[in-house]
Amino acid sequence: MELNEIAREVSMEDLWNIWFSELHRKSAGLTVKIKDILFSGKSDFQRIEVFDTEVFGKVLVLYGSIMISERDEFIYHEMITHVPLNVHPAPESVLVVGGGDGGTVREVLKHKDVKKVKVVEIDRMVVEVCKRFFPEISGGFDDPKVEIVYNDGARFMAETGERFDVVIIDSSDPVGPAEVLFQRQFYENVYRKLKEDGIMVAQTESPFYDREAISKIYRSFKQIFPIVSMYIASIPTYPSGLWSFGFCSKRFHPIHDFRGTKVDCASLRYYNPDVHVASFKLPNFIKELVE
Amino acid sequence: MELNEIAREVSMEDLWNIWFSELHRKSAGLTVKIKDILFSGKSDFQRIEVFDTEVFGKVLVLYGSIMISERDEFIYHEMITHVPLNVHPAPESVLVVGGGDGGTVREVLKHKDVKKVKVVEIDRMVVEVCKRFFPEISGGFDDPKVEIVYNDGARFMAETGERFDVVIIDSSDPVGPAEVLFQRQFYENVYRKLKEDGIMVAQTESPFYDREAISKIYRSFKQIFPIVSMYIASIPTYPSGLWSFGFCSKRFHPIHDFRGTKVDCASLRYYNPDVHVASFKLPNFIKELVE
Repeated sequence: MELNEIAREVSMEDLWNIWFSELHRKSAGLTVKIKDILFSGKSDFQRIEVFDTEVFGKVLVLYGSIMISERDEFIYHEMITHVPLNVHPAPESVLVVGGGDGGTVREVLKHKDVKKVKVVEIDRMVVEVCKRFFPEISGGFDDPKVEIVYNDGARFMAETGERFDVVIIDSSDPVGPAEVLFQRQFYENVYRKLKEDGIMVAQTESPFYDREAISKIYRSFKQIFPIVSMYIASIPTYPSGLWSFGFCSKRFHPIHDFRGTKVDCASLRYYNPDVHVASFKLPNFIKELVE
Repeated sequence: MELNEIAREVSMEDLWNIWFSELHRKSAGLTVKIKDILFSGKSDFQRIEVFDTEVFGKVLVLYGSIMISERDEFIYHEMITHVPLNVHPAPESVLVVGGGDGGTVREVLKHKDVKKVKVVEIDRMVVEVCKRFFPEISGGFDDPKVEIVYNDGARFMAETGERFDVVIIDSSDPVGPAEVLFQRQFYENVYRKLKEDGIMVAQTESPFYDREAISKIYRSFKQIFPIVSMYIASIPTYPSGLWSFGFCSKRFHPIHDFRGTKVDCASLRYYNPDVHVASFKLPNFIKELVE
């Protein structure tokens, strides 16, 4: 075969055939073909990658795990935000622990009650990378109501003198820098820094894969908060596609005190008042984790 | 390095490192490490494989797509069955189109009202393989109430003189042999073969990936049935982990006519009365497909 015939049969584009796999239990997971490697670096805390992909658009990968994808980030961010902010009748001060991508802040800012949003993110490079590659997700960081503090979430929570109406624990998984954000001592500090009618919501992993961890987390919640409920959402890029959130509250009940949404649902792609209520109705194999 | 040192470093078990990937849009999907290849064959209609896996137990793979896994099949089978059978007040005759693995029949038989279950499966080899490798799923085929007919579902539906209370379309995807089961002519025949208060439920693919197909399917449903609703469930081994079902009915409404479950929920791992109602509450990005 002549060299120019080989060139006709195999394009250089075909040769660049690179896949990223996020494995669960080392033996199953999501595999995604990469169109382009937009960023690959190492912060003081973790590896950070940004890939462009056909199916999910741009994805942010921390320590090998997909944190956000352009295609489905709306699900996670709407559900972690609008559930607590629609239950609290007047959430003026909101603290986001983690959340360096800005998606949660973007959703918080849709609530006109909110006067101040504080974000405590440990890793400055996450914020910088998201500002550069995900401007439509991180744009809220430029809002004058928003203040970013670069600090360890657990240390901040122990030391701050502030009190909040709503605290959102928008952490990565309980490996690496976020491990302390899944421990009882941390939740006790959150409780102390909430006002007397405050609400904490935390992402609490996959009810399909992380069953022991979830049981332990909710036992901690119940030892601290009088009102504790789990709610769930379908998030295609997260392990198992099924994700859980813990609603922990001093006074307001997630269903009985829910008076409908205070945000225009036309701006939302997942959350609506029916979904709010439905997300707390747990399948039997999940309910048994939190009872 | 001496040969015996090489042998110490690489075991034969390490060398057998085989992965199965089910891709969506050719560039993302589920990847699963295979512990053992239990069966690989070709029927008159499709390739059939049975793999043993660490995370999902045994999985049945038709034409390269996971149909059932031991670990999560309960979700699909409970949701496709108990929703219609709990809405219909007295479902005596049930037709399952497809369903050669037997999981739907197993769930149907939990309803004491049911006197007769007919299964129309095109591929005899699917039933034989499932009886051999998934006895706990296919066991219901031995029940005297159950009759299996090996026939094309579309042809059976056009020709049968029988009438049914509930018809469950437990098909594979609209590629290959099941393609006709997603066409309007087929649904019209189902309508005609349902009693005057009959209910059809059909699996209708992933609301994340198959958006155009779903819009088309529900337009057909609405041209034929007076009552049409979509409900959803989280199924980790199915594309995107989020799956939809169409509830199509001549008289009974899936929520207003639902009087609770007639099956002991202790035997179920996903479905319960709250989940029944909640599964019809659709996120905005799904609702727009069926409105």
